Amino acid sequence: MTEVVIVGAGMTKFGEHWERSFRELIAEAAIKAIGDAGIKGEQIEAIYGGCMASGRFIGQEHIGALIADQLGLNPIPSTRCEAACASGGVALRNGYLAIKSGEHDVVAVGGIEKMTEVSTEEASFALGGAGDQETELFHGATFPSLYALLARRHMHEFGTTEEQMAMVAVKNHANGMLNPNSQFHREITVQDVMKSTYVAEPIKVLDCSPITDGAAAVILCSKEKAEELGLGGIEILASEQGSDTLSLADRKSLTELRATKEAARKAYEKARISPKDVSFAEVHDCFTIAEILAIEDLGFFKKGKGGMATEKGKTTLEGEIPINLSGGLKCGHPVGATGVKQAIEAFEQLLGRAGERQIKNPQIGLAHNIGGSGATAVVSIFKKWGVGE
Amino acid sequence: MTEVVIVGAGMTKFGEHWERSFRELIAEAAIKAIGDAGIKGEQIEAIYGGCMASGRFIGQEHIGALIADQLGLNPIPSTRCEAACASGGVALRNGYLAIKSGEHDVVAVGGIEKMTEVSTEEASFALGGAGDQETELFHGATFPSLYALLARRHMHEFGTTEEQMAMVAVKNHANGMLNPNSQFHREITVQDVMKSTYVAEPIKVLDCSPITDGAAAVILCSKEKAEELGLGGIEILASEQGSDTLSLADRKSLTELRATKEAARKAYEKARISPKDVSFAEVHDCFTIAEILAIEDLGFFKKGKGGMATEKGKTTLEGEIPINLSGGLKCGHPVGATGVKQAIEAFEQLLGRAGERQIKNPQIGLAHNIGGSGATAVVSIFKKWGVGE
Repeated sequence: MTEVVIVGAGMTKFGEHWERSFRELIAEAAIKAIGDAGIKGEQIEAIYGGCMASGRFIGQEHIGALIADQLGLNPIPSTRCEAACASGGVALRNGYLAIKSGEHDVVAVGGIEKMTEVSTEEASFALGGAGDQETELFHGATFPSLYALLARRHMHEFGTTEEQMAMVAVKNHANGMLNPNSQFHREITVQDVMKSTYVAEPIKVLDCSPITDGAAAVILCSKEKAEELGLGGIEILASEQGSDTLSLADRKSLTELRATKEAARKAYEKARISPKDVSFAEVHDCFTIAEILAIEDLGFFKKGKGGMATEKGKTTLEGEIPINLSGGLKCGHPVGATGVKQAIEAFEQLLGRAGERQIKNPQIGLAHNIGGSGATAVVSIFKKWGVGE
Repeated sequence: MTEVVIVGAGMTKFGEHWERSFRELIAEAAIKAIGDAGIKGEQIEAIYGGCMASGRFIGQEHIGALIADQLGLNPIPSTRCEAACASGGVALRNGYLAIKSGEHDVVAVGGIEKMTEVSTEEASFALGGAGDQETELFHGATFPSLYALLARRHMHEFGTTEEQMAMVAVKNHANGMLNPNSQFHREITVQDVMKSTYVAEPIKVLDCSPITDGAAAVILCSKEKAEELGLGGIEILASEQGSDTLSLADRKSLTELRATKEAARKAYEKARISPKDVSFAEVHDCFTIAEILAIEDLGFFKKGKGGMATEKGKTTLEGEIPINLSGGLKCGHPVGATGVKQAIEAFEQLLGRAGERQIKNPQIGLAHNIGGSGATAVVSIFKKWGVGE
């Protein structure tokens, strides 16, 4: 069975790129990744690009072809994957499968979203397409309100508090301070979060991830080809994907995301590890409650204990299982790029290149990317890989 | 190397489904395909869905999750692929790669578009996203006008006539008469086409494929698994994808599509056949000129001879290489579904199930699916496969 490694990574700064186009952003990320890998563009055999809603954000579909064109890499195959906010994670998984298929040895995986070209109302509608348009969005539910339902139920069943959710935001902003690519470099306090405006009770502005422009890219390679080229990097031990109902109303439980649990179960099994073996994780904190759900569903903490674990500091940079060292989605969430950027954080940490936010000697990293309110989840597991050390 | 077969196929009638939703259409196609394969839904391990512009057509993204949900197939991975009008072909290729990767044995591939929910103006804008929004659409170019440029150049260089283009439409309408799933059951004459209104000279209304609702699905299986289950069908000998510049202005030639040529070259090589071995082909006739380009670029006729070959009847049902036996895109083009429906026609023909339009004893079928003005092309080659005969 072909094994797959990541040999290079690059991304734009996440933020509001008013003067830069979709094309410029994806090109910057891709060119950085190619340079980082130390390969030539012509060595790339296929491209997978994650992008959620370019049709609504910039009136442009056919994103795979656009990326290949912008990079001057025609005529290689270039495919866009869409799975709402999990588009990047799904693109990563399909790049990985393309190499495992034996059809390609070197694949570029990118993720991008340019979200600031439209009004907030239009962006809300575009993002609403991640949920169930017929049973949710049509009736006025926006994403903060859907996650508010999940938060309310978690608070009701397990006593999770708004302060604990706020602590997720505080921690991720603190991590984001140490990440030059973060959208925000601003420390916040629990009080700041608690005093911020309610968007959909109990979710406040500072519980939400922002609207962001940005792109991220990694270069995937079969292990055999990487050895031949003398490239080092990290190995993808597993990349698994799960699905769930589009509408929250159809779920059996509102305190766990089945897609996450299923993807995680398969990923741990394939990687032959348990949650205890994970050194750090990038998880999908589109809202602070989502991080609490994730660290439970991924098996780092028992169901219902995620809020308390956060309160006790177990998920900080110095904690027992650092979560969202990059700053998470809280510090920038260009939806199609997020899943790829998570893999980049794993790459940087495992290779000891994460600068001020570097943790000591991590062995295994995990990335967890969610679409919508959890109808898609991708869990990928990485470890450092020897060549080139 | 794992080999991949198609063991079941199903589709909706193509047309204007005013009273049926996106969900109902994809469910109908998928349930028919599952039933046709004689498997149970639970045996499906992953889904790939082709869809171009659901965000603009129905305000819904996250189409992979929606399909799995609608079919009750959670929590399996379900991925949407987008490559404009080649979305279906790209979904097929990625389902094929997913099986070749060894990660999945049974994969459902669907394609869908619900295009009639919006005005013609909005549909034009949505479809425009297949081209280059910045250098083409923004300046008023719509798809008929882009293909009109290709037609003009072909007429100029090779003497191709409007009558020859009309003959493509006449032939495809004649084939569509024999296909119960065709959007049109209406014979037309060259005179009808010639007298129809110009949309963008030299392209007239009857040179264009229509706006269509519809869905199509096939069940892919590793050969080993199909043998174990005792299923018959057709083998995918190759599925290759090429890319080209998004904008026509950047092309070196307007009389050939490089993405088609590249995908075809690789597909013939992988399948170890030459164009002469192909018994019939479904090609991407979004406009009549596109079929002429395709039959040249695929190597059935020399460059510049496609119009004359059509005039001489070489591509009719009784011709030397029947093209678009299904009626082609001319008889229905729900953009995301088209690439999958082409594979279905290959399936039906190779298994001798194509009813009135069945050709005698075909050995090899080819499907050719284009995105936009040719920035993506997928060429897949099929042959009948023994088990279950």
